[in-house]
Amino acid sequence: MDNFMYDDIILTALKEDITSRDITTDYIIPPKQESAAYLEAKADGIICGIDIAARVFELLGGIEFVSKIKDGDRVKQKDIIAELKGNTRVILKGERTALNILQHLSGIATKSAECAALVSGTRTVICDTRKTLPGLRALQKYAVTVGGGRNHRYNLSDAVLIKDNHIDAAGGIDKAIATVRGKIPHTAKIETETRNFAEVKTAVSSGADIIMLDNFSLDDIPVAISYIRKTDPRILIELSGGITESNLRDYAKFGADIISLGALTHSVTAFDISLKFA
Amino acid sequence: MDNFMYDDIILTALKEDITSRDITTDYIIPPKQESAAYLEAKADGIICGIDIAARVFELLGGIEFVSKIKDGDRVKQKDIIAELKGNTRVILKGERTALNILQHLSGIATKSAECAALVSGTRTVICDTRKTLPGLRALQKYAVTVGGGRNHRYNLSDAVLIKDNHIDAAGGIDKAIATVRGKIPHTAKIETETRNFAEVKTAVSSGADIIMLDNFSLDDIPVAISYIRKTDPRILIELSGGITESNLRDYAKFGADIISLGALTHSVTAFDISLKFA
Amino acid sequence: MDNFMYDDIILTALKEDITSRDITTDYIIPPKQESAAYLEAKADGIICGIDIAARVFELLGGIEFVSKIKDGDRVKQKDIIAELKGNTRVILKGERTALNILQHLSGIATKSAECAALVSGTRTVICDTRKTLPGLRALQKYAVTVGGGRNHRYNLSDAVLIKDNHIDAAGGIDKAIATVRGKIPHTAKIETETRNFAEVKTAVSSGADIIMLDNFSLDDIPVAISYIRKTDPRILIELSGGITESNLRDYAKFGADIISLGALTHSVTAFDISLKFA
Amino acid sequence: MDNFMYDDIILTALKEDITSRDITTDYIIPPKQESAAYLEAKADGIICGIDIAARVFELLGGIEFVSKIKDGDRVKQKDIIAELKGNTRVILKGERTALNILQHLSGIATKSAECAALVSGTRTVICDTRKTLPGLRALQKYAVTVGGGRNHRYNLSDAVLIKDNHIDAAGGIDKAIATVRGKIPHTAKIETETRNFAEVKTAVSSGADIIMLDNFSLDDIPVAISYIRKTDPRILIELSGGITESNLRDYAKFGADIISLGALTHSVTAFDISLKFA
Amino acid sequence: MDNFMYDDIILTALKEDITSRDITTDYIIPPKQESAAYLEAKADGIICGIDIAARVFELLGGIEFVSKIKDGDRVKQKDIIAELKGNTRVILKGERTALNILQHLSGIATKSAECAALVSGTRTVICDTRKTLPGLRALQKYAVTVGGGRNHRYNLSDAVLIKDNHIDAAGGIDKAIATVRGKIPHTAKIETETRNFAEVKTAVSSGADIIMLDNFSLDDIPVAISYIRKTDPRILIELSGGITESNLRDYAKFGADIISLGALTHSVTAFDISLKFA
Amino acid sequence: MDNFMYDDIILTALKEDITSRDITTDYIIPPKQESAAYLEAKADGIICGIDIAARVFELLGGIEFVSKIKDGDRVKQKDIIAELKGNTRVILKGERTALNILQHLSGIATKSAECAALVSGTRTVICDTRKTLPGLRALQKYAVTVGGGRNHRYNLSDAVLIKDNHIDAAGGIDKAIATVRGKIPHTAKIETETRNFAEVKTAVSSGADIIMLDNFSLDDIPVAISYIRKTDPRILIELSGGITESNLRDYAKFGADIISLGALTHSVTAFDISLKFA
Repeated sequence: MDNFMYDDIILTALKEDITSRDITTDYIIPPKQESAAYLEAKADGIICGIDIAARVFELLGGIEFVSKIKDGDRVKQKDIIAELKGNTRVILKGERTALNILQHLSGIATKSAECAALVSGTRTVICDTRKTLPGLRALQKYAVTVGGGRNHRYNLSDAVLIKDNHIDAAGGIDKAIATVRGKIPHTAKIETETRNFAEVKTAVSSGADIIMLDNFSLDDIPVAISYIRKTDPRILIELSGGITESNLRDYAKFGADIISLGALTHSVTAFDISLKFA
Repeated sequence: MDNFMYDDIILTALKEDITSRDITTDYIIPPKQESAAYLEAKADGIICGIDIAARVFELLGGIEFVSKIKDGDRVKQKDIIAELKGNTRVILKGERTALNILQHLSGIATKSAECAALVSGTRTVICDTRKTLPGLRALQKYAVTVGGGRNHRYNLSDAVLIKDNHIDAAGGIDKAIATVRGKIPHTAKIETETRNFAEVKTAVSSGADIIMLDNFSLDDIPVAISYIRKTDPRILIELSGGITESNLRDYAKFGADIISLGALTHSVTAFDISLKFA
Repeated sequence: MDNFMYDDIILTALKEDITSRDITTDYIIPPKQESAAYLEAKADGIICGIDIAARVFELLGGIEFVSKIKDGDRVKQKDIIAELKGNTRVILKGERTALNILQHLSGIATKSAECAALVSGTRTVICDTRKTLPGLRALQKYAVTVGGGRNHRYNLSDAVLIKDNHIDAAGGIDKAIATVRGKIPHTAKIETETRNFAEVKTAVSSGADIIMLDNFSLDDIPVAISYIRKTDPRILIELSGGITESNLRDYAKFGADIISLGALTHSVTAFDISLKFA
Repeated sequence: MDNFMYDDIILTALKEDITSRDITTDYIIPPKQESAAYLEAKADGIICGIDIAARVFELLGGIEFVSKIKDGDRVKQKDIIAELKGNTRVILKGERTALNILQHLSGIATKSAECAALVSGTRTVICDTRKTLPGLRALQKYAVTVGGGRNHRYNLSDAVLIKDNHIDAAGGIDKAIATVRGKIPHTAKIETETRNFAEVKTAVSSGADIIMLDNFSLDDIPVAISYIRKTDPRILIELSGGITESNLRDYAKFGADIISLGALTHSVTAFDISLKFA
Repeated sequence: MDNFMYDDIILTALKEDITSRDITTDYIIPPKQESAAYLEAKADGIICGIDIAARVFELLGGIEFVSKIKDGDRVKQKDIIAELKGNTRVILKGERTALNILQHLSGIATKSAECAALVSGTRTVICDTRKTLPGLRALQKYAVTVGGGRNHRYNLSDAVLIKDNHIDAAGGIDKAIATVRGKIPHTAKIETETRNFAEVKTAVSSGADIIMLDNFSLDDIPVAISYIRKTDPRILIELSGGITESNLRDYAKFGADIISLGALTHSVTAFDISLKFA
Repeated sequence: MDNFMYDDIILTALKEDITSRDITTDYIIPPKQESAAYLEAKADGIICGIDIAARVFELLGGIEFVSKIKDGDRVKQKDIIAELKGNTRVILKGERTALNILQHLSGIATKSAECAALVSGTRTVICDTRKTLPGLRALQKYAVTVGGGRNHRYNLSDAVLIKDNHIDAAGGIDKAIATVRGKIPHTAKIETETRNFAEVKTAVSSGADIIMLDNFSLDDIPVAISYIRKTDPRILIELSGGITESNLRDYAKFGADIISLGALTHSVTAFDISLKFA
């Protein structure tokens, strides 16, 4: 990702953390004191956000930041992620902001990698949703890909996802698809939710690009998938609803193309990293 | 919390979610269609952020939003949290933004309530840390209090927390405390980390307002607490390091004043809520 | 479009136009003076941006704004577009900002309608490009649809468009498509530019969703289109390069799906509207 | 112009163009690949905005940008405007934003130069109006001067322009001028519209600094100008209304000081420039 | 002034004053408690900013604010400026922000009125300078006019003020004036500083609109003024340098048109106002 | 202070000062002209804001800025504060913004130093209040400390200050303190206003951290202080109300810990500094 995508996020975080001064550091640490420090992994996982952490200190100034790994690298507990050298005050002021971002994104990447591993060997890939935290969507979705997941649509503007209300308002999946096909950007795909086999058939015959089997039972999923594959092998099939890390492998066996997991971004466990002075 | 504290967050989230138009909704749902809908809890827990959810729809316009509960109320699965009536397009466009915020804050409040319950009956209260997500600190810390937790300092500017580096730079806890006492706002308290009993004694004799026992062993904690209580009963004692929901109750028995838990805000499990059309 | 999409644009425009005060109006017009006024079309065309014009006066306050038409309506010279009643100072201060936006968007809608008319009766629709003015993309693209055009991808994030450099870096269209297909959101389509018939064939066999015939000669276009239609009728065909309003009809006859026109947004002739006092 | 005047515009444009990632470039072009490219004029004209284009790539980072010309220089088709060397991804990501701004401003400068040429040899200079695009006024007005035009007042705050409503509210041009003269900054000039010869006489006797002959007939213009010149040669005379590129020369012959042209900024034809890889 | 001119300033001030919550008010005052309060003058003077104070509470919501006076009104100690009724928490949260702005602007208006009184009966009016506080220029300059002063140019963009460096770079006042006259907006006046009688003569002959006598001695001022008045009575004469409230009357006697006073905005004494609960 | 704390303030000030161009400088001074200049003190005092002044020119670019003193240094009239070398246009464009900030902050620091001197030799220190100017609180409070004063609470969120209304709403100081103690961050101190000796006694017995004697008479102050000191020597005592520079020394003799002075930030006299070309 490019600096302009996250500079505002970093500055917002710094301003949250220092409204007047760091009244501990500014009054105790001499202004010119220099230190060396490093970021150390406190667990095994996938790192994401290292450039953003580096940028925190670049925006503050006065620090040489050397990454020892790059986004997507797998680290083990005690691995050194980056080394910092420079003004002690700056290290202390940037520490929390850098760690908060790095730990959150690495947590997403690590969880995504775990989920990706659970579906590996199947046709299925995991992807995220729009269940993201305000202001952090681009970063969170980036972290999913760093961990080996895929992205679902970025937002309401870049792909069609037809839900119950749309179906009802249009008078059926076929009419909903026909309506949007004539109006949306020709570069956008059309996905539709389906709640039962009848809807699946309509979705297929209406030319949906992607069909989501929404909360289908374990018995109904293979029937629907088999029908779609036979009728139009180009259609992508997405499973959604009630799928978590614990049952993910079971669902992956059905051979759908995508399983979307809201938890990747809405319920993140921070990956533990600490900044230590050398 | 007041509108001006989160309006920017809501608008940022809406702009993340709609860069041009909602190409599903705007092209399918008639512009004047009206619907009724409601927010339903999908689990038991504490709701937080209901005014912010309401504000999402107020900023979008065209919706009557009636809260059935208020922040801090405990709900059971299937309880109705709020009812909405108005323009269908607006409901669909605001849904994800409102839910993302509401689920995150309710997740924090629910977890905070669980942790508060674990320490109830002891002298100890739980509190948060600065391990928050960028741009969301005020909201996250608010949610901790809604759940029954307390807040630690808001940021680096409003209280002193003396750590290793400060101690080393100053040449001891006593000198660090003496230095800041003469300079900080007289309204700010001074907290110091301590790593061993010797440091605890220095902290006490230097007049620290709050002493943190950082990563003390289960054996050392009662010794330190007993010493502090005897010597100066006004000093607040905080335990930190390695304390999680699973061992929280054990630590609470020591009778410290505060146990701070980073996980309350850095590792949040969203509380499941869904918007359903009536 | 929703208010939150353009409120910042309106406020920016108002702040450009008044840095201290309106030194003519504030010093001459009595503060409570009221007037009636109306917006009048000075030419025939399609109106776009009426809600934004209304919002200008809503943000300023003190004006009742009644639209006589809605976006997409065709007006004739002298038609009344809207009526305003209220504080004279506010009418004078909002006039230029409202007109500047309304005239620009109506200019785009009118030109889009003209181009759409030129291709009507063919399979071809016209669409816009990313050649938009800074800060105004969402509004400009909205105006294209209001005029009867379609939108191309909104930006670099929501669809793939493989160009020369991508092809060269990947080592061919087939490799480029294979690379992105495994990584992009499954909701995004893949379009590729082609420069000759050989590339068209590769694009088809690689499963491109959309094939752009870039600067193909009038002789080569029908050959390429015929080949694609025969081989895979689902592929969308886009013509681009050197197509203007004057030769648009000729190109439309080839039966491509889309012709993209940068001029719709990069070279806009304002649609003339004036605000007159009643 | 200085960076701080347009950095926000550039960042807004970049954020419009990349909401998550450039899903074509980031997934195909290797992160360290370097390229050389250049900006080439596709027509004859005046270039404006070269420093802003350079700044786009400076903000993105990783590019050496060498301008071959400077703002105001006349180029011929195929002339090289600038050369770029550096990270291929950055060139591709900045291309559209840089070109969109450069083409728009060069379009204004080129048209302004054409209009300036039409009045050359007369006493008349051409100038712009407040009919600018939201957020782009400073840039657009700068481009007018680069092309050889002059600027009218920047906004409602820096000069007086008395129009119909002001005249009516004040009870005449004389009263309107008297009113503002006693209140406005002493550094601001007073211009008044006039609709007929009687108003011209009042404007002169009231001490207007600038008199606009608004929609005067070709017969009435010389009479009014002659009267003003004789009575008070210091008064500046502006013609406005119904003047376009095609009749500009005819109006210029009357020897007014200024002719203002809204089309310079409200109806801009982009100057065609392309970025080519070397 | 219009809301859009100061809403950002109010929101910035509120966010400075409440980063998380008002931890006194939110924890003590019941959420629905209502109070009546009023703003009382603690001294005699001119009020400025009453609409902005009202807007503070309008943005917070829940308060009925009734102004008893309007900007420019003279109040005596103990006069009631406005009455508030509504949510007690909101009154307490908005109090400081509203008072800080109101006291500052009323301080400027009051001082401006005092200075205006000192020059009353002479030809001279007092005006402000660009010596304003960051972010507050429009408000400060507005307050000067409310107090009866005039405004100098708003900024570097709306009028010419030729200083030493410009004169030296151009090679003389005559050349400097000739240079800018051919380039600046025709709506902008040209003012030049002069340091001695020779420069005054050049300024007059070069057609300066305004001549500033910069730090002229009390003996030299009448000579220069007399020369200018005789030679070209239209030229405005400004005195500047070393003029303060204490010697203002002496300088005003010379009959210059304008005396500019930096202290009006750079050294403001707040006008004392208190919010009292009824 | 760190750059990110004031960059927005600087940019806002620059944008206030240049909306299009510096029409004097840009049209007269050659673009590449270089000059040397310096900042000279025009009075004796304490300098504050030198890094911000330097940052103004760093953000504009093209200037080498060498500080000859640092924040807190005492200067005498004619002392050189900093030397600048570089692009003449940039020096002229940054001059006013840099000086406006530097003069304001140095004015605060100088006044604070004077007040600090008045209480020197006593137990009392002077401190600021929340009576600051919108957007400038952090800078103003920083300047107070640079001059030798202390800071009161930064805002409503970081310490408790119980006032009349809180006392009344809670039903007494004791209840108010008990209420907040159970809810506020444990790092925040509790201060309460007291209006008479009875309230002082309640405040002491309720465990207030800080007691403000609000508008106590000269006779009552020593009684209250003596009581507090005897009863609980840890309590900090603050005097407030009616204390100005002229009577400050008298109040300081009572031996309170803090005297807060609103005038330090709400009624600032700019410290005179000029930029001179070498």
